Amino acid sequence: MSVPDAPATGVPSDPSDPVTAAPARPSRLDAAIAARLRRTADGLVAAVVRAHDSGEVLMVAWMDDEALHRTLTTGRATYWSRSRREYWVKGATSGHHQYVRSVALDCDGDALLVSVDQVGAACHTGHRTCFFTELPVTAPEAR
Amino acid sequence: MSVPDAPATGVPSDPSDPVTAAPARPSRLDAAIAARLRRTADGLVAAVVRAHDSGEVLMVAWMDDEALHRTLTTGRATYWSRSRREYWVKGATSGHHQYVRSVALDCDGDALLVSVDQVGAACHTGHRTCFFTELPVTAPEAR
Repeated sequence: MSVPDAPATGVPSDPSDPVTAAPARPSRLDAAIAARLRRTADGLVAAVVRAHDSGEVLMVAWMDDEALHRTLTTGRATYWSRSRREYWVKGATSGHHQYVRSVALDCDGDALLVSVDQVGAACHTGHRTCFFTELPVTAPEAR
Repeated sequence: MSVPDAPATGVPSDPSDPVTAAPARPSRLDAAIAARLRRTADGLVAAVVRAHDSGEVLMVAWMDDEALHRTLTTGRATYWSRSRREYWVKGATSGHHQYVRSVALDCDGDALLVSVDQVGAACHTGHRTCFFTELPVTAPEAR
């Protein structure tokens, strides 16, 4: 990759580079899709969840290969919990289901955009979106 | 956290848990903000970039504490390159600048939503958005 401000592509020279991480757990994910994923050191890709109707960004969660497989094949958004180290199906206990309308992979394979029909609030706090904490942009030229 | 399908919160019992990762590099980021971040094993949070005008999700990149500091204080979206292990200011070479309008942190501190005025294409491939690869949702009930 010769474009300095482009995402990372190609084969990193450092074998400890997290972008070469292998799947962390066994998975039934289609091999052609799995080959395109570029995972964090703990074997995950970021899943950005968007409301299909409004386009609003609702949350970010994490998927390993198997969570992606389950999401694609069940139509129910399924994630990997980093703290509990287990799969969770959104809404299984809260009732705030996410019915998957489409899934797109980004150009360098480390993020997914999941468009869903969201039942109720996406955030466990009761907010519609998880992104309710604004940080101060202090740049003089900020518009 | 007693809600099984909620994001991870609280203090994980396993000290190797990636969500407790410390900053990977020195940073001038405000300590109160830094304290809210819950980083990957390599010290990063996911930054979801959205077009301020259309709401379209353009890309996902990665920020460490210092990249977030620079983004907030310069008004120019700045990321950490996982493969090159260096900071990059979006548009510095491509001219496809991202002028930051707002930044929001999510409820569990592992993702940012950055609203920008995007000049030109966000994706290094020339696509407006990086999410141009649709994956097949094969669930019978997929709508």
